[in-house]
Amino acid sequence: MTDGVFASPATVEDPDALAATEQAQGDLAVSLREMVDACVRTRVDDDTLTAVAQEVRTLTQRLLVRAQSEPLGLETTSGGRLRDHGNPMAGMRNPIAPPLAVTGDTEGTMSATFCLGAGYEGPPGCVHGGMIAAVLDQVVGSAPARVGRPGLTAYLNTTYRRPTLLGIEHVARAWVEEVDGWKVRARGDIRDPQGRVTAEADALFVVPRWAREHLGTPTGDAGGVDPGDTAAHDVATS
Amino acid sequence: MTDGVFASPATVEDPDALAATEQAQGDLAVSLREMVDACVRTRVDDDTLTAVAQEVRTLTQRLLVRAQSEPLGLETTSGGRLRDHGNPMAGMRNPIAPPLAVTGDTEGTMSATFCLGAGYEGPPGCVHGGMIAAVLDQVVGSAPARVGRPGLTAYLNTTYRRPTLLGIEHVARAWVEEVDGWKVRARGDIRDPQGRVTAEADALFVVPRWAREHLGTPTGDAGGVDPGDTAAHDVATS
Repeated sequence: MTDGVFASPATVEDPDALAATEQAQGDLAVSLREMVDACVRTRVDDDTLTAVAQEVRTLTQRLLVRAQSEPLGLETTSGGRLRDHGNPMAGMRNPIAPPLAVTGDTEGTMSATFCLGAGYEGPPGCVHGGMIAAVLDQVVGSAPARVGRPGLTAYLNTTYRRPTLLGIEHVARAWVEEVDGWKVRARGDIRDPQGRVTAEADALFVVPRWAREHLGTPTGDAGGVDPGDTAAHDVATS
Repeated sequence: MTDGVFASPATVEDPDALAATEQAQGDLAVSLREMVDACVRTRVDDDTLTAVAQEVRTLTQRLLVRAQSEPLGLETTSGGRLRDHGNPMAGMRNPIAPPLAVTGDTEGTMSATFCLGAGYEGPPGCVHGGMIAAVLDQVVGSAPARVGRPGLTAYLNTTYRRPTLLGIEHVARAWVEEVDGWKVRARGDIRDPQGRVTAEADALFVVPRWAREHLGTPTGDAGGVDPGDTAAHDVATS
């Protein structure tokens, strides 16, 4: 699956109001991303840490005054697409997400530029191996959508060639290798600014049964990935 | 590599004061973990979202009054161990981390119980495939330490057997399959409460050259993993 692949069957009553809400939701996530990074790096005294934690809890209560108990799932956005804004790699409402903004070129190659900071550290100075796999799962998992087969990961084989450094811009790319009915094999890699591959992945994605009916009746644009058509998405990646 | 494998060569001047700091740092991370979850689920109005975001930015500035620019790396804890408290899967100072508390049994099997919420969602209601790979990288990556060979991930092959559901306690386990000099092959899986495997991994870890000298001269406990001996670790997982 990938973010924004499907046009939503739901009607958006007031797209302008929804766009404003997306802007506010995305901005809150941006502010929390910055705080997560500061939480890892801060060296303030214990009293300040304790006071800030108390204020964070008060703010959390303000957010929970009205909140859904279940996770976010897929939402219809102001742009009329189904998006998973809670996604921990690409979701504009998720402070855990870098977030990755995956775009496609005319050849069908998907790509995302990213730069991970202190919150993603595994070996000193380097991106955590699991986070590297997560970046690849998200980016490589977006490739099958280009051939109309957005699926769930069946396997993800990640090979680490050299350290992926924190604080440096890398590019993750992905492309389809083979389509076999509802199964799509795709590959991808991460390259450093010198163009060296730091990690690569070979993965298989399978369209779940419950989604096949929808895909079996093409909706016109279900096979395309829009390169970020909503205001909210722009907020999250600006 | 894994958290707390090595006794630190540094001396802790005042372990009690350091333990208090760890407690405050860990508690701040706990409070932010809760806020990340609320950020994804909240349905409050735009004005509240904007006001909370502004307050978050003010709190972040309080943390940045004194902060290191570089990521956390390895730190000597009050328990005299080297720990990566910034680790995005296991780090007690990292709000992104569930956090995973990996412990080992007498047979050498490593395990961690975890339950992931709204912030880790991929397919609706399910844990993101990349986050599953990240859990496995962390837990399977802890197994080589049991044979004195804590290494970096060379490859991580993850196979997804069935959805790993959000909000449900799962157990990740790992064990060493084969040791070949500085290379260790390890495997692991994630099981749901019914004992069904939801995902499994086959991985290779290699001890980097710079760490071999240290491991080549055993420090007595470098090959063991303590099951969470610091007060700070207890805070993070309570």
